Formats: sequence, structure tokens, C-alpha cells
Amino acid sequence: MSDIVYFEDIQIGETHSFGPHNVSREDVVRFAAEFDPQPFHLSDKAAAQTHFGSLSASGWHTAALCMKMMVANWQQNPGIQAASLGALGIDELRWLRPVRPGDTLRGTSETVEKKASRSRPEMGIIKTRVTLFNQNDEPVFTMNPIAMVRTRPV
Amino acid sequence: MSDIVYFEDIQIGETHSFGPHNVSREDVVRFAAEFDPQPFHLSDKAAAQTHFGSLSASGWHTAALCMKMMVANWQQNPGIQAASLGALGIDELRWLRPVRPGDTLRGTSETVEKKASRSRPEMGIIKTRVTLFNQNDEPVFTMNPIAMVRTRPV
Repeated sequence: MSDIVYFEDIQIGETHSFGPHNVSREDVVRFAAEFDPQPFHLSDKAAAQTHFGSLSASGWHTAALCMKMMVANWQQNPGIQAASLGALGIDELRWLRPVRPGDTLRGTSETVEKKASRSRPEMGIIKTRVTLFNQNDEPVFTMNPIAMVRTRPV
Repeated sequence: MSDIVYFEDIQIGETHSFGPHNVSREDVVRFAAEFDPQPFHLSDKAAAQTHFGSLSASGWHTAALCMKMMVANWQQNPGIQAASLGALGIDELRWLRPVRPGDTLRGTSETVEKKASRSRPEMGIIKTRVTLFNQNDEPVFTMNPIAMVRTRPV
């Protein structure tokens, strides 16, 4: 039996959990300094003058941490990783709550849609619904990735 | 006259350009190692065994570089930055082509929708259409950010 998960093997409603990951102040500031140096992502003092109130992570840092946890989960559990041909994109990405230094994130993903490709029988499209929660079980981030997954070789 | 751009000041069809940014091999590997350590984002050798063919940037790195260029543009041209109350999220994020080490990215954004808030008169919702191009003027990445922007104080 192979470890490879093909399009046919993936079930609607299938769920996976990943994480946790602890968000450090150093990482929040380092990511923001490189990619999103808006003052409220760089210091509590600047954030106090905005609606954020205190330091919060760049939304793109949260998204990157979500990917980090998902990849770690695939690499630790190769039997769950689909034979991916890459991601087409993301629908409905939402930042629901600020992510703060000291927060511990964890996530879930659920397969919500499968679509065979008529023009490319070697692959199908899988849509999942991904949610990140903080340590209070509050959702902080959701997104719906769309991936191309190889069909079982005939 | 104030530099602050309120909801009322933003016009549908308004466009801005940002970048360029040169994507280095070192940055591609460093980002992937931290957030997306799939082998095809870490070495040409591993990528050659996949549909990518050679090393390509994590899609989340491309997204983060887009933010980096947009923030730099706002900070260099404070007269164009809206009085943002934060981003709600992103619709229709798409990775259209691989981003490779050595690519030079640049971007454009266009205001595509304005929606006043009935329940919160102090803000409105602005939707933009963002596109990144490579040095061959090929689109590599698109997304539609949704932001909350302050209305002019009465």
C-alpha cells in the first residue's frame, strides 16, 4: 500500500489538525520589519495610538505561520499529504482577530469540495476550509485554499 | 490641506504602482526554510523532480513581498495612504506563474469597489485589485484586498 494520497482518496468532510505554534514578540517584529513595517506591527507604543491597542502580527505573518504548521503536519504524517500539483490560490482569506505576541495558534482544515477536471484527467481540484484558533479557541484567521491534486495513475 | 486620505477621497478606478523588488535566491530559500519548507522551495535539485522544474518562491513569500512593496510605496508617498482601520481580508488570491530567483517584481493596485457602512458611519469598505508582474510583464500574482477606511470626521 502506497503512502501517496491521490484525488480519488480524498473525502469531502475529511478534517486534519495542525500546530500548535507559539508566536513570539521577536518573530512578530522581525517579520514585520522585513515585509510589513507599519508602525503598529513594530512596537506597542505605536500600536497604542491605533485601533490595535498593542502590538499585533502582520496578517501575512499569520498566513505564513498557518502554512508553516500545515507543512510540518504533512512532513510528520506523510500518509495525509495529497499528491499536490500546486495551489491555484486562496478564496475568502479573512483576518478575524489580532494575533498577539504570546498567542498560541493551532489550526484545522476540512475538505469542502472536489472537482474532477474534464480537460486534464490527470488531476482534480480540491478546495479546503482552513481555520486558525488562538489559545482561547477563538478563530483568528480563515481561508479556503484551492489545490490541484494528481489522480491515481491508470 | 491634509495628507490624510479618507473614504470619501478615494475614487473607483484610481490606480497606484509600486516596486520594483528583486527576488534573490537567498531570500527565497530563507523564507521557505522558515515558513514553507517543501523541498521544491528549498533547492533546484528537488524542484527538478517536480512540475516546478527549478527553484520557485513560496506563494506566501510572493504575497509578503507584495505587501512589502505596497507599504514602502505608502511610506514614500504618505499622500496616497488611506486612513485605514485594518484589512478584513483578501478575496480571489491567485498564484498565476512561479516566481523565480532573479525575477524582478512590480505591482499595480486599482480601487474597484467602495461601500459605505450603514451601521458604522465612521468607516467604509474599499476593495482593490492588486496585480504583481515579473520583468517580462507577465502577471504572477493577483488578489483583491478588502480594507476598512475611516470616513472624514464631521
